[in-house]
Amino acid sequence: MAHYEGAVQALIDELGRLPGVGPKSASRIAYYLLKAAPEDANRLARAITEAKERITWCRRCFNIAEGELCVFCRDDRRDPALLCVVEDSPDIIAVERTHEFNGRYHVLQGAISPIEGIGPEQLRIKELVRRVGEEGVREVILATNPNITGEATAMYLARVLKPLGLRVTRIASGLPVGGDLEYADEVTLGRALEGRRDVEA
Amino acid sequence: MAHYEGAVQALIDELGRLPGVGPKSASRIAYYLLKAAPEDANRLARAITEAKERITWCRRCFNIAEGELCVFCRDDRRDPALLCVVEDSPDIIAVERTHEFNGRYHVLQGAISPIEGIGPEQLRIKELVRRVGEEGVREVILATNPNITGEATAMYLARVLKPLGLRVTRIASGLPVGGDLEYADEVTLGRALEGRRDVEA
Repeated sequence: MAHYEGAVQALIDELGRLPGVGPKSASRIAYYLLKAAPEDANRLARAITEAKERITWCRRCFNIAEGELCVFCRDDRRDPALLCVVEDSPDIIAVERTHEFNGRYHVLQGAISPIEGIGPEQLRIKELVRRVGEEGVREVILATNPNITGEATAMYLARVLKPLGLRVTRIASGLPVGGDLEYADEVTLGRALEGRRDVEA
Repeated sequence: MAHYEGAVQALIDELGRLPGVGPKSASRIAYYLLKAAPEDANRLARAITEAKERITWCRRCFNIAEGELCVFCRDDRRDPALLCVVEDSPDIIAVERTHEFNGRYHVLQGAISPIEGIGPEQLRIKELVRRVGEEGVREVILATNPNITGEATAMYLARVLKPLGLRVTRIASGLPVGGDLEYADEVTLGRALEGRRDVEA
């Protein structure tokens, strides 16, 4: 497919490296950018450069941050005794959307995955253990993804954190709200049964 | 959702404007870029800026081009008597992948769409008519999309070009190869029936 001019192909190649952008989306986006007003395309280029320059990792929780600490660690109204552990920063946004959590976060920056060569040392687990001791954390909520690597990470963290004498919880797995038993996969439905709760009446 | 730092939110907003990139993909891509090595992210930013600087529209066919003429118009081995009319540059790549076409192209840069306020004047139709006269074109293949706006555009072009005394053809609509009658929509199957051909035996 050497049908594109050099600069266009270079752009398509770079776009194709982004997550969730296949070769077809890459060329569609490239074409969109070529058709767009120069200021619009350049604003995107500048946003990338500026974000890279200004954003680092929060010194405390390893969320993305523009200064030393992220927005959550800077917020004094947040309960420091309650810590929600997630794999990556976007997961924080998902938790925030529930409006159910008012503690602090800790971002592992990944999950344990022997296949990808990611062990506990590659994650921010040492820092998590240190925080638990220093910040008087009473409960750690393990909110890693409910998939193989996320579960393995949660199991590992539970084993490390339990001996420190604090409450360690895991977010529930089960049927999504609005879901349908008929179409649920057997693993999820199995989890929903396993995690059943007494009905208060 | 003001959970992100300014520079991150700005990047997510810009990414979210790209075609096929929803809010979730935008934040996933932004996070990927923040985690990526600075040189990788900056290469993308540079590719955008450079493509915008170096790419213009081919003077003859309105495909994307780095110089005056695009790769196809520069290629002397291409038959100038055969012209394939497409809506946008990425459609050319689709035609090229078939290895069935060795003529030149003409890019309309859109399709007639009264709803979006796009009439024939907004497209490169005047230039197409001029080319047909100047370049000794014998056949124009209308390869606009087989949807409402693409069909309307093809109909319009046929009416404009036919009186000029050249062959005007339209790409076939029908079942995709490897497709399944059972799952075909009725319009496509109707077209396939309408466009049936005698079997040579």
